[in-house]
Amino acid sequence: MSLVVVGSVAYDSIETPHGRRDDMLGGSGTFFSLAASAFTKPSVVAVVGEDFRADDVALLDAHGVDLSGLVRAPGRTFRWGGRYHEDMNGRDTLFTELNVFETFAPQLSATQREASFLFLGNILPKLQDHVLEQVRAPRFVAADTMNLWISTAKADLCEVLRRVDALFVNDEEARQLTGKRSVVLAAKDIQALGPSLVIIKRGEHGAIVFNEDDVFYVPAYPLEKVVDPTGAGDTFAGAFVGYLDATGDLSPENIRKAAVVGSLMASFCVEGYGVDRLRHIDRVSIRERFQAFTELTRFGALDL
Amino acid sequence: MSLVVVGSVAYDSIETPHGRRDDMLGGSGTFFSLAASAFTKPSVVAVVGEDFRADDVALLDAHGVDLSGLVRAPGRTFRWGGRYHEDMNGRDTLFTELNVFETFAPQLSATQREASFLFLGNILPKLQDHVLEQVRAPRFVAADTMNLWISTAKADLCEVLRRVDALFVNDEEARQLTGKRSVVLAAKDIQALGPSLVIIKRGEHGAIVFNEDDVFYVPAYPLEKVVDPTGAGDTFAGAFVGYLDATGDLSPENIRKAAVVGSLMASFCVEGYGVDRLRHIDRVSIRERFQAFTELTRFGALDL
Repeated sequence: MSLVVVGSVAYDSIETPHGRRDDMLGGSGTFFSLAASAFTKPSVVAVVGEDFRADDVALLDAHGVDLSGLVRAPGRTFRWGGRYHEDMNGRDTLFTELNVFETFAPQLSATQREASFLFLGNILPKLQDHVLEQVRAPRFVAADTMNLWISTAKADLCEVLRRVDALFVNDEEARQLTGKRSVVLAAKDIQALGPSLVIIKRGEHGAIVFNEDDVFYVPAYPLEKVVDPTGAGDTFAGAFVGYLDATGDLSPENIRKAAVVGSLMASFCVEGYGVDRLRHIDRVSIRERFQAFTELTRFGALDL
Repeated sequence: MSLVVVGSVAYDSIETPHGRRDDMLGGSGTFFSLAASAFTKPSVVAVVGEDFRADDVALLDAHGVDLSGLVRAPGRTFRWGGRYHEDMNGRDTLFTELNVFETFAPQLSATQREASFLFLGNILPKLQDHVLEQVRAPRFVAADTMNLWISTAKADLCEVLRRVDALFVNDEEARQLTGKRSVVLAAKDIQALGPSLVIIKRGEHGAIVFNEDDVFYVPAYPLEKVVDPTGAGDTFAGAFVGYLDATGDLSPENIRKAAVVGSLMASFCVEGYGVDRLRHIDRVSIRERFQAFTELTRFGALDL
């Protein structure tokens, strides 16, 4: 098996009610591949600037992330700044500096073109398509998207959706994409556009997985303190797809487990700023929290 | 076993994006007892006006609700009007006419004073206390409350909480009552005030049940269409407590099942206006949807 992810590797500046951090390692490609690295050896395709720090390269490398596709370009690394609201759910974007990301045209190596699992981060749909064209015979292609592309590049996005197996979206994006208020109806409409697997992420409320006719609800883990929600969605996707790549099993039963693994890694992610917590997760922690999810959701048969 | 509920029996006028209905049978006592009647024979303590319709009495009676405690007083029945927002989550209260409810001082009959299960609907905490005083030796007392009492009668509410086994609140009320942002910390604080069982309702996202150290997450059932969310919380509580009364089993395992039963009855409730759907639920429908909840949430062991 092999997993390739195309996404951003960035520096994030975050303000939360608990505090503030500047220029932390972030980006969808970073969270995705760190989460996936708990299960498999992901290969990341991304661009960074001349200012990208050596210790951040070392961190990804130490987690077994293949960095042969990490291009270093003249200029500054992509930067994003956000401020979370008091309830830690909503957030405002303070700034977006595309920098080297502006002219990013992902080129896959000969090895990456043979990937069996592919994740298309929420880059411009035209670029997602450009990546998809390069992979010879992927077994499983998943994509993310965002409200910006739904409003400005919907036709291109639909073209991508026709060719992917799975889409990760939040409930707001699902409604925006389909015009349907009910996530059940929205998921059906998205399935009709292409992906048989639609994962609707709901932040602190978990996710609903629509896998053809199979519907699975995974909660978010109830935490005493959420430090920084940034990257939770990409972490969910990275663990989900990384686990599928590691097990090579696309059965409905295993897709359910992948969703639990996604939610549990996201629960670790938000316990620290940026990747602070995610970088210290071992197999034992994963097994323990998986067991905690089992305890959280189990119930017996009805005797009525 | 025997279950007594004190709450409102009212006429609701509702506007949703789907349509509008006036003067429908509603109120916390109504939704609670209709939901409970699927499992046991609840006894309702409430007041209605001279305008209360004979067919609404007949409806409750046909569901086995004991109406010996339903007082008919001079004047008009309690009325509430609300308008739901486009997303069906938020709502605005359009009017509240207390009418006969304004001078309601619940008096329990000799039989009701022997109740083993008691539910205190979200009436003034002083009145909840007044009812609690009348019940000789209840085995299980649950209460509901609302933001109005948290802000205007918190000391009285805390006095009630000291003496109840369970509290049903939504996440906003839990935060308001404790000042804690995290529902986990809020639930712990509420437990410290008295009830060992705290059920935090989250609308379309289900509920989290904190039962001493046991934490259980039950989702809401994903529906294609929500017609009218009114009464879903009272329906959840009615089915929950009614199921506990019917089984007489307060074990943690059975409390988990009670929460699933609560969520499934709430999912029926919101499929129709007012009590339209709730009045037509039989044991077969309950078993089927319980099975659907099992399918929705089950997952296997992690093979890692």
